[in-house]
Amino acid sequence: MSGTYETRLAELGVTLPDAPAPAANYVPYVTVGDMVYVSGQISQDADGRINGKLGDDFTVEQGQAAAKSCAINLMAQLKAACDGDLDRLVQVVKLGGFVNCTPDFADHPKVINGASDFIGEVFGNAGKHARAAVGSSSLPLGVAVEIEGIFQIK
Amino acid sequence: MSGTYETRLAELGVTLPDAPAPAANYVPYVTVGDMVYVSGQISQDADGRINGKLGDDFTVEQGQAAAKSCAINLMAQLKAACDGDLDRLVQVVKLGGFVNCTPDFADHPKVINGASDFIGEVFGNAGKHARAAVGSSSLPLGVAVEIEGIFQIK
Amino acid sequence: MSGTYETRLAELGVTLPDAPAPAANYVPYVTVGDMVYVSGQISQDADGRINGKLGDDFTVEQGQAAAKSCAINLMAQLKAACDGDLDRLVQVVKLGGFVNCTPDFADHPKVINGASDFIGEVFGNAGKHARAAVGSSSLPLGVAVEIEGIFQIK
Repeated sequence: MSGTYETRLAELGVTLPDAPAPAANYVPYVTVGDMVYVSGQISQDADGRINGKLGDDFTVEQGQAAAKSCAINLMAQLKAACDGDLDRLVQVVKLGGFVNCTPDFADHPKVINGASDFIGEVFGNAGKHARAAVGSSSLPLGVAVEIEGIFQIK
Repeated sequence: MSGTYETRLAELGVTLPDAPAPAANYVPYVTVGDMVYVSGQISQDADGRINGKLGDDFTVEQGQAAAKSCAINLMAQLKAACDGDLDRLVQVVKLGGFVNCTPDFADHPKVINGASDFIGEVFGNAGKHARAAVGSSSLPLGVAVEIEGIFQIK
Repeated sequence: MSGTYETRLAELGVTLPDAPAPAANYVPYVTVGDMVYVSGQISQDADGRINGKLGDDFTVEQGQAAAKSCAINLMAQLKAACDGDLDRLVQVVKLGGFVNCTPDFADHPKVINGASDFIGEVFGNAGKHARAAVGSSSLPLGVAVEIEGIFQIK
């Protein structure tokens, strides 16, 4: 718990949850060499799933909070992949962000920034990642945001 | 034909088709070192394309069958990438599943389980993969499911 | 400017733009070993963003032109990742193409061919890539196409 990134998380007032269990028959992450592929994490926190549709019943600010929860869940999986030591992170390589939204929605980048900004706050330069953000007409269980990630560790 | 996984496929009553040709100007897989990137495989079998929209004219069970056909097509491509020897598989690393569905559909995980469950049946531990499953408002040629995959081979 | 691929681009009448800045808080590419992960590039050229929805106000031909602009932007990012020397490309590994379209649209492969064909014209065998093409109900800022890419360089 005394690692650099864990300290930073504590400063930001965030406690990582237990790594969420997958919603179905797969594993939360696979490690190949120094690369960790983390399954799509849906927007959920201690209060439960964060459901909504951007452009309809959900504001960009609510979407950003949902995206941040995905980032926290990605970190929880990454920590598990690192046997509990987040400081083994070398680089956040790539995020794939999916926004549950209406056909005329256009602010996907702002929404996924809820994850990217938080990752930058926690990891600094090691958090600078490539990214794609797209719209989905629907997401699993009705969640507002889903984000998958690729990480390099040591 | 006497490989471990081929035997398992035969026990499950599945014969891999010839690796489907891409629907357009690209290749079905690219190998980099020990990693194989397989192009998105659409739901189709010996009877032709499996078209439909979940939440509209397609049940979850039909969606699962479509997803299983994608998994079989991924295996056919993987076999080709392994010069015919599926036992060179080390690990199914990551699946990306896209479900053609209506805006209020929420059972994407159950649908893509049609692929994940089958992969687990065939490959066992080597089949434990990371995954993302999302909704698409439409998919190529009207198919119900499209799944891309990353595999580690030896 | 005298590299093989730059010469080919010039023959095709294409000048790579400066690598487009990301639309939000992330970086345009991350390099891990010999792999370059390029962020999703939206359809835009010197005249600005290429916005539209396939199946509604946009023809397949317009979509192909939008996809080609994404390919050009991917190349611009790749060139930056190669410190200006495109000839360091070993292989275009994988493209992920997202088409902004209506729920009944089915010609995603033809649209993304606008990128794949151009990449083939420029890079030849090194341009033969795996690919997934799917429909999105909406894309960032209303663009018609977004494409992400993975490249192997030396």
